[in-house]
Amino acid sequence: MNWEELARELSVSNETKIILLVIDGLGGLPHWGRTELETAQKPNLDHLAVSSVCGLTDPVWPGVTPGSGPAHLALFGYDPLRYRLGRGILEALGSEVEVAANDLVARGNFATLKEGLIIDRRAGRLATAETERLCAKINEALKEKDGYVFHLAPGKEHRFVFKVSGQGLSDALSEADPQKDHLMPPPAAPMGAGAEAAGSASLVNSYIQAATDLLKDEPVANTILLRGFSKLPSIPTMSELYKLKAAAVASYPMYRGLAKLAGMEVLQAGAETEDIVAALERSFKDFDFFYVHYKKTDSAGEDGAFEAKVRAIEEIDRFLPRIVNLKPDVLAVTSDHSTPALLKSHSWHPNPFLLSAKSALPDRVTVFTERECGQGLLGRFPALQAMPLLLAHAGRLKKFGA
Amino acid sequence: MNWEELARELSVSNETKIILLVIDGLGGLPHWGRTELETAQKPNLDHLAVSSVCGLTDPVWPGVTPGSGPAHLALFGYDPLRYRLGRGILEALGSEVEVAANDLVARGNFATLKEGLIIDRRAGRLATAETERLCAKINEALKEKDGYVFHLAPGKEHRFVFKVSGQGLSDALSEADPQKDHLMPPPAAPMGAGAEAAGSASLVNSYIQAATDLLKDEPVANTILLRGFSKLPSIPTMSELYKLKAAAVASYPMYRGLAKLAGMEVLQAGAETEDIVAALERSFKDFDFFYVHYKKTDSAGEDGAFEAKVRAIEEIDRFLPRIVNLKPDVLAVTSDHSTPALLKSHSWHPNPFLLSAKSALPDRVTVFTERECGQGLLGRFPALQAMPLLLAHAGRLKKFGA
Repeated sequence: MNWEELARELSVSNETKIILLVIDGLGGLPHWGRTELETAQKPNLDHLAVSSVCGLTDPVWPGVTPGSGPAHLALFGYDPLRYRLGRGILEALGSEVEVAANDLVARGNFATLKEGLIIDRRAGRLATAETERLCAKINEALKEKDGYVFHLAPGKEHRFVFKVSGQGLSDALSEADPQKDHLMPPPAAPMGAGAEAAGSASLVNSYIQAATDLLKDEPVANTILLRGFSKLPSIPTMSELYKLKAAAVASYPMYRGLAKLAGMEVLQAGAETEDIVAALERSFKDFDFFYVHYKKTDSAGEDGAFEAKVRAIEEIDRFLPRIVNLKPDVLAVTSDHSTPALLKSHSWHPNPFLLSAKSALPDRVTVFTERECGQGLLGRFPALQAMPLLLAHAGRLKKFGA
Repeated sequence: MNWEELARELSVSNETKIILLVIDGLGGLPHWGRTELETAQKPNLDHLAVSSVCGLTDPVWPGVTPGSGPAHLALFGYDPLRYRLGRGILEALGSEVEVAANDLVARGNFATLKEGLIIDRRAGRLATAETERLCAKINEALKEKDGYVFHLAPGKEHRFVFKVSGQGLSDALSEADPQKDHLMPPPAAPMGAGAEAAGSASLVNSYIQAATDLLKDEPVANTILLRGFSKLPSIPTMSELYKLKAAAVASYPMYRGLAKLAGMEVLQAGAETEDIVAALERSFKDFDFFYVHYKKTDSAGEDGAFEAKVRAIEEIDRFLPRIVNLKPDVLAVTSDHSTPALLKSHSWHPNPFLLSAKSALPDRVTVFTERECGQGLLGRFPALQAMPLLLAHAGRLKKFGA
């Protein structure tokens, strides 16, 4: 018996409201002895910590650095080792591309091919309008083949989502993208022995060839690269599992896609922190559960910009009182994964976790940092156990057994 | 490989003695800033904590509030997600009703039926003597049908245990009890499609009808309600798993039933703390392992009586020296689950856990409270890992591997 089965059996609906604020990539490493969180002036988070119970979460497994997909799935209570998400699926969902059960999707780039080598994987960061024009051109010419229907959905700059619909498609395909410049573009290769993977590889490769033929006179964007082939996993919704009416406030496509996959209603919100908090305030009466995603900390961490990450923490801290003032029954502040500026990437370090609720036993943690949360009463726990705690403190889990 | 398999492989017998003192519902939440444990004067528990190693346990799953059954199973080292216990089984075992492998049991109430509605689920909390009279009356008239043998065992006030013996009985039955007054009594319905469940439902419902016919002239107790249909799960004994000769000192039926299920010998003990400690002292030479159950803390918590719970903690603290003076090789003090007076119910909050043994590395915890135990060296761990620790400190687990 796992958490999902327990959740189906024990969850009940009531009038409580839960907010899960995810400060993406929050955890860090010291620069002159202090982490980003330890350096930031964040009086509101610290004040909240005084009356909260804290801990540290491991997103997937101690030592394992998660992508945003598994890290978020774990936070939403889905075992990330059970549900594997292709990047293509996340991108497609987040780009408002409708994906059906049989569809195969991938992330795509326009790229520059010269003498058999990819010399620029991003085709000079092609203008978005150009990407739109080229996608339309390809869509018109390459609509259908042998009963399979193809579609490119333009994204920002050189990016697009590739989708093919039809029977018997497999996502067990290697990347049709060299990942680095100055290499030959590799064909998609079937991973494993299945006939479906072989057929899908051949279908995808002939599409790439046909698109490249169509683009042969383009000066910069004269080929396409595809990676992250994936199909829609079958994930029970938060409504099915937890009897929650859940909403997501997130401006970045991938996080919106993740939320949609978990059955959340994705609210419209601009990229500014003001937009996000205003969207939460506007919709607070309409849902039980709110996943609120704040991206700036992760972006700064990925850039190795320690000071910018400190400022991003200080920015979300200034908005915190507006979230607290909504008076949710349960408010959790945490992250999906750490992104230390020192490493310029996601990392395996555990996430600070703070839970505020009437039934929370406040611990000694009065400063919301990685090291202080390590002293919290929740201890160190898998992020997969965050949802059970949120539901429990919201009075949404029945007693197990007699 | 799970703990049970490990235990069978590694456990050895020796001359050591282990006491597991379960202070039921011990953990709490703050009233004026302090929990019940933080408020109580308990010099003996605190003194013991100085030389002990402490931690916090999660009974079943973080966030999941356990019933007494699963919470105790976990403490005894049985995975509560694997062994599901019906309330009827616990009640039957604790009421000294012998239950065989094929028997179906349930908890029963005498109730008052008026114009098709249950107007009092407890028949005015019928006197125990009346319950005894009515059970005898029904037992005499409804002894056997189609090879099935029925029996009602009277309990306290309006309560009894229902038992039917025969082949092919199923416990996949819904409650034949409306759970609230002013509703129609529902028939037991089969849960799932099996023929055994359908047959058992029909058998049970015709029995309820026949009993109601027999009671038609009773002024108050004119029907019966049955709930918690269950059969005996097959649980290996503590002797099989741990090579322990185990005894239980518990006065409440359900805890006695739980201990019996785990293969413990249940010692006679009155309800007073003096009775419990005296029973432990009397039998200390005869067993290896003692499960000692103290109920008053849980009862006070369930009543929302913060002060009474504080006094209950102080009472067991006064008896602690007599337990310590028995000089067990391992003494653990903990709880099955928390029962904060603030919530008036079981809760999901973790349990304070203290382990005293020569081989325990004392930590910094010098006051036995929820928050102090959170700083203990054992950290936060599943209650299922308590037995391995007790056995290890008693020298009763061999080395794993070479």
